[in-house]
Amino acid sequence: MKNMNTELTAEWLLSNDDYLILCHRYPDGDTIGSAFALCRALIALGKNAAVICSDLIPSKYAYIYDNLNLPVFKEKNIIAVDVADPKLLGMLEEEYGGKVDLCIDHHGSNLKYAKRLLLDPKAAATGEIIYRLIPAMGVSIDKKMAEALFTAIVTDTGCFRYGNTTPETMRIGAELMSMGVDHEAINREMFDTKSRERMAVEQAVLSTLDYWCGGKCAVMYLTDEMIQKTNANEGDLEGLAPMPKRIEGVKIGITLRQGDEGYKVSVRTNPGIDACQICKKFGGGGHTAASGCFIKGTLSSVKEDLHIAISEVLGE
Amino acid sequence: MKNMNTELTAEWLLSNDDYLILCHRYPDGDTIGSAFALCRALIALGKNAAVICSDLIPSKYAYIYDNLNLPVFKEKNIIAVDVADPKLLGMLEEEYGGKVDLCIDHHGSNLKYAKRLLLDPKAAATGEIIYRLIPAMGVSIDKKMAEALFTAIVTDTGCFRYGNTTPETMRIGAELMSMGVDHEAINREMFDTKSRERMAVEQAVLSTLDYWCGGKCAVMYLTDEMIQKTNANEGDLEGLAPMPKRIEGVKIGITLRQGDEGYKVSVRTNPGIDACQICKKFGGGGHTAASGCFIKGTLSSVKEDLHIAISEVLGE
Repeated sequence: MKNMNTELTAEWLLSNDDYLILCHRYPDGDTIGSAFALCRALIALGKNAAVICSDLIPSKYAYIYDNLNLPVFKEKNIIAVDVADPKLLGMLEEEYGGKVDLCIDHHGSNLKYAKRLLLDPKAAATGEIIYRLIPAMGVSIDKKMAEALFTAIVTDTGCFRYGNTTPETMRIGAELMSMGVDHEAINREMFDTKSRERMAVEQAVLSTLDYWCGGKCAVMYLTDEMIQKTNANEGDLEGLAPMPKRIEGVKIGITLRQGDEGYKVSVRTNPGIDACQICKKFGGGGHTAASGCFIKGTLSSVKEDLHIAISEVLGE
Repeated sequence: MKNMNTELTAEWLLSNDDYLILCHRYPDGDTIGSAFALCRALIALGKNAAVICSDLIPSKYAYIYDNLNLPVFKEKNIIAVDVADPKLLGMLEEEYGGKVDLCIDHHGSNLKYAKRLLLDPKAAATGEIIYRLIPAMGVSIDKKMAEALFTAIVTDTGCFRYGNTTPETMRIGAELMSMGVDHEAINREMFDTKSRERMAVEQAVLSTLDYWCGGKCAVMYLTDEMIQKTNANEGDLEGLAPMPKRIEGVKIGITLRQGDEGYKVSVRTNPGIDACQICKKFGGGGHTAASGCFIKGTLSSVKEDLHIAISEVLGE
């Protein structure tokens, strides 16, 4: 594995051709935006390049690759963007997992599986790294590339809201906006639009909200019946888990989702409480602020098990 | 009325003293952050300055004025910040409405009621104008001023998400972050924290969601009984109106709130539909994307009146 910087990566890209760019599975704005911005830059240089992903790209990102005429060619060089672990290639892992010539990523947890690695863990999004790479190849960022990179950055930073946002992220955002990105339309699509089914699911889970330990813990649940009633799909169920911990005074937010003979438990905590410690009691794990586990039993027995564990953690 | 620029305003502030800075009623992050940043800068210059507002400043903004020792003095010069209309001074209008020596504002609709006006309608927040004004007075922006200005800007732009955000807004955000602002903590407080009562109100209004005209219009309502049941206060009810228009496919979002012998109607529209035109039919008005009116009657008669008007606008 060779560690690359922006200049070395630009040189390598300029001196080779026929690139296949891989996104990670369950693709998000950063992997998609970064991949297509790079693809457009390589095509602008007269190179052959294409993007693939093991999963369908959600239709809300379609503007990123409209009007893009991909050349027909046989790939010689494999690039993975925003892919920290070859497992994240999904179905593409078997064919390409061991053959990645260049990985461009911002995850500190990157497994260094590629022949060459351009890694910047301080970047809020892989899109920031691509933003520096494109001019280093002598290509000027056009409006479509700018839209793709802006999407990459806003989706990974919650529109400049999360702690990973740096002054450099803000400056790059300013530059991309100056290049004519319709930031209002992109932000509306990414952050302000919810499906009818999503609204119905939010209403349904909020109606189950319960508070424990004097309001320091908030719990809500989602049953198969609720999912059927609201006609929600998996996409509609994304991002529910952080909801309870956003309530004033809540230190631990818990979301239960009905599974096979039990409930999948998502624990989210505010600073000061270790979510992983809670989930380890039930054979699960994860990060300090976000962890998960599975508990067998009925809704009421699972809630009781959790209530006891949470009361211990909160010392009540 | 004299139109001022940044330099003239700085000169005037440097050559006078004993400033009373007024916020608008129902104070938000921009009026509070701008007022206290300016107040701290004037105090740093050895001047007397204080801030007042007709309404209580919500406790979530308390960090903006903690550790601020206000001098005791008799005011000689009145400054209004982010106050487009003297009526917005609330109870302070009677005493100060006609005596404002300097108004600093970013609303294009400013009524030009003050003796001196520093107006920049291109600024996303009054905080942007104050950001330029403080160094023009020879004061360097300290961490507390930076936090106040950052709060002003993020609250008026939805954390750099709305259309009013410009590349300049982003660059100012970058500079303020470089000055040591804990942007993650401020953003969590401003955007990610909701009261228990607010969660209950959201659940309650979402449970009333109804769709008209093939899903192009979404309607929800809030009755006195719902407010009582959820124990919500006025603060908990803020910002509900944009919820229905965020639903996929919805062009017109309507929120009804029970009032005296009728309902207060808030209309929010996505690009292409004029909310003001709809509200004018009922004697109301406002802006293209956000307007309001009052319709007398019962919930069902008000809904029927609106349904007819909306169907006409949507040509259905």
